[in-house]
Amino acid sequence: MRGSPIPARMIPSIFTLANLLFGFLALIWVIESNFTLAAAMILLSVLMDSLDGKVARRLSVSSDFGKELDSLSDLVSFGVAPAILTYQAILQPHQTEFVKYLGLGIAVVFALCGAVRLARFNMLNITTYFVGVPITFAGGFMALLMFLRTMLPWYIYPVSMVILAFLMVSTFKVPKLSK
Amino acid sequence: MRGSPIPARMIPSIFTLANLLFGFLALIWVIESNFTLAAAMILLSVLMDSLDGKVARRLSVSSDFGKELDSLSDLVSFGVAPAILTYQAILQPHQTEFVKYLGLGIAVVFALCGAVRLARFNMLNITTYFVGVPITFAGGFMALLMFLRTMLPWYIYPVSMVILAFLMVSTFKVPKLSK
Repeated sequence: MRGSPIPARMIPSIFTLANLLFGFLALIWVIESNFTLAAAMILLSVLMDSLDGKVARRLSVSSDFGKELDSLSDLVSFGVAPAILTYQAILQPHQTEFVKYLGLGIAVVFALCGAVRLARFNMLNITTYFVGVPITFAGGFMALLMFLRTMLPWYIYPVSMVILAFLMVSTFKVPKLSK
Repeated sequence: MRGSPIPARMIPSIFTLANLLFGFLALIWVIESNFTLAAAMILLSVLMDSLDGKVARRLSVSSDFGKELDSLSDLVSFGVAPAILTYQAILQPHQTEFVKYLGLGIAVVFALCGAVRLARFNMLNITTYFVGVPITFAGGFMALLMFLRTMLPWYIYPVSMVILAFLMVSTFKVPKLSK
């Protein structure tokens, strides 16, 4: 890569920062009440997240800095953004005050469990299998559900968030396929 | 701490999760267009962030898990939340399209620089001084500025964000006072 304007070790981090960028834009689109576009941003983050690791291994430039940046971006794009998107699109507009507050509580728990998962996973340093469900899966799943919101009953969303929050912090092993 | 319902090693993480909780609620209040309350939530996060480290050292239970969780929460509360708050309260309502888009760009850069700072800082593992300006300071400063928004000209906000973004990723040393 000599002579390249961008050093090879920086390239995976560009994808990771793109992951964070799309997570940030998802939040902006939630504020603009464009929930479909917000969900699409989260799926773009999923794509960027799958690329950064692949590129890092291909270029043999995996680093602690890159892993750290990856976790930080993942919390925004797959923890906070899907939780706020689901709350704002599905639960906040609900007629019942009780559902609104319960929904906000569930959204908070989803984001907090995502953070606990990321903090624990980075600490364990395991590369051959996942412990519990990865936050990328949980956030990506909630983003996909958003496209079906005219077809699905509303309660599918909080129930899915509770189950995914639990699965993120649970300790069963899931084999890694490609990553 | 034997017999206590919560193990001592868990106590600092409760403050860290409270930091993340208030950062999450700051984003909810931005969506509700209550920018003063959103800024107050960020200041509560600053308080929680100063407590978690103090409590961890007092109880001698500092851990890699705790440090990791701290970085994750800091990005949401002091990187993403102040950036989205400032964009939404000051820059998005601006008459000029150019300022809106430039403002969004600056908000993104602020959050991204915060992430780079946290990833780099966690890697360096330095405890006696800060390298560059801590994200807690940058986010707390932007939250304080929000209370003065009827008195200050609008351009103070993007200029402050650019300067703070640069200071977060710069490498000069700032001595630690208490932390």
